[in-house]
Amino acid sequence: MENKINIYDLIIIGAGPAGITAGIYAGRQKIKTLLVAKSLGGQMAKKATEVCNYPGFERVSGLDLIQKFVNHLKKQESVEIKFSEVVKIKKEKNIFIIITTEKEKIQSKTVIIATGADPRPLEAEGEKEFIGKGISYCVTCDGPLFENKTIAVVGGGNAGFEAAIFMKNYAQKIYVLEHGSTVKADEWNQKEIENSKKIEVIINASVKEIKGDKMVNALVYEDLVSKEKKTLPVEGVFIEIGNQPATSMARGLVNFNKRDEIEVNLETFQTKTPGLFAAGDVNIGFYKQIVTAAGEGCKTALAVYDYLRKNR
Amino acid sequence: MENKINIYDLIIIGAGPAGITAGIYAGRQKIKTLLVAKSLGGQMAKKATEVCNYPGFERVSGLDLIQKFVNHLKKQESVEIKFSEVVKIKKEKNIFIIITTEKEKIQSKTVIIATGADPRPLEAEGEKEFIGKGISYCVTCDGPLFENKTIAVVGGGNAGFEAAIFMKNYAQKIYVLEHGSTVKADEWNQKEIENSKKIEVIINASVKEIKGDKMVNALVYEDLVSKEKKTLPVEGVFIEIGNQPATSMARGLVNFNKRDEIEVNLETFQTKTPGLFAAGDVNIGFYKQIVTAAGEGCKTALAVYDYLRKNR
Repeated sequence: MENKINIYDLIIIGAGPAGITAGIYAGRQKIKTLLVAKSLGGQMAKKATEVCNYPGFERVSGLDLIQKFVNHLKKQESVEIKFSEVVKIKKEKNIFIIITTEKEKIQSKTVIIATGADPRPLEAEGEKEFIGKGISYCVTCDGPLFENKTIAVVGGGNAGFEAAIFMKNYAQKIYVLEHGSTVKADEWNQKEIENSKKIEVIINASVKEIKGDKMVNALVYEDLVSKEKKTLPVEGVFIEIGNQPATSMARGLVNFNKRDEIEVNLETFQTKTPGLFAAGDVNIGFYKQIVTAAGEGCKTALAVYDYLRKNR
Repeated sequence: MENKINIYDLIIIGAGPAGITAGIYAGRQKIKTLLVAKSLGGQMAKKATEVCNYPGFERVSGLDLIQKFVNHLKKQESVEIKFSEVVKIKKEKNIFIIITTEKEKIQSKTVIIATGADPRPLEAEGEKEFIGKGISYCVTCDGPLFENKTIAVVGGGNAGFEAAIFMKNYAQKIYVLEHGSTVKADEWNQKEIENSKKIEVIINASVKEIKGDKMVNALVYEDLVSKEKKTLPVEGVFIEIGNQPATSMARGLVNFNKRDEIEVNLETFQTKTPGLFAAGDVNIGFYKQIVTAAGEGCKTALAVYDYLRKNR
């Protein structure tokens, strides 16, 4: 697809809830915008289970919700959509240049990075097969589906412990598996788990396989001390071993925290580089949900509008 | 209605998009919650025009969107709803006490203030009659409905000037009316208006009446210097003379900025009083939309969940 415009006012990279909402608001402000993404929907497209926490929809499939977001975006006349991947962002004088995998260079006065973050996969046998069939990477999203079930949480850091604590309200039995010989979760989290009879922490556990029929029914791990293989009967597995924000294209222009998330001003979502913004899961914001990403996409587009007015 | 619980974990005050989303997330976290509000829907209930900027709904009436939010809220088993008004929040030791207009006292470990902000009315003749029939208090919400029309913006501060600048993209002619003898908008905004042939600023203008048939067709103002009454033929009137956040019940426990908005940490939305939070239009956040209020409601409920865990 050829681009219609020489210099855009705004390039949005990514089309999850943050990027699409930024696009909707950029359109309403009549900002000449190019949205660049590999595909539409972001993590919503990968959710095999239903979305029950986006206000206004009690229960909707990820794909249906994406379609509604995308239809809404496509009403915006000033927003073009381009299917590609951005490998690098540069700034020369006051203009940003984004470079795509096809080596195309596109210029813009501002850029919103909304590329999201993928949960780090475990890379165990059966993992891909059972995503959405008992395997999940998000307790806040999918936890309530496991009422009265036995589950495993993989990961003994804060994310894993907090997932287990959250699941106390739902599951009847929770195993927390940690690969190392000690857990990394902070004291608060450790105390809370000690007091729960439902939760059992297993250290030195290397998860080898997730098994099932149509749905997950067991997890196999190796005890790294005894070298024995052990099987846990579980109906759900939450994998909580971190996220990988897709932010490498911005190296040099932004600061990262230790989780590789982009540092931003939490009012405008601008990075340390004027005109470069980051919304949704890619930034340092602590609470990451569809509706928070959408809210940040909106705020960021309105901040871009203000920036463009003041930097003509 | 009698309250079922002696001490709640959370009281949410207000049931606009921020309060309802906080309630949905509190329910998902199984937090024992009481939501107290005069009525359900907040400003959405007062929007007579359609909502076109909440992602997922290309076009929906305010009342329909409220109904969807409310249905979603009512699925949450741990959330009770009480119809009343809170006049005061006190904190004694670690417990908050809210006092209602009926002099009822209700205790809670945490409180989220989500009482919103009402636009300040002009108090001109015809104003109430034509709300949603040409009169609006929000250009970002309703501006696109006035494509190629002649409109007036009442208010010569930054809000009024920014409304006029936004409307340059839509309206064919824009009058900005300021009551005082000088405009209060900052230099950036003044410069941008000077360069536009579409925009005409009228000072010393006291708006007396908004007239119409089914829809607005004229605005009558008095020139405070000549004492003459003048009529402008307009199809739309945006009233931009400030907001009144509903925050008096929190006096003593929170800091206010000069617009009477509650100061919060922009990550957790906690005020200066531990356990007391403020989400949506009541707080200092700059960009105020349905989706930003919903995003903040979500973040705040998740921050309450963390607070409750760490303060048992």
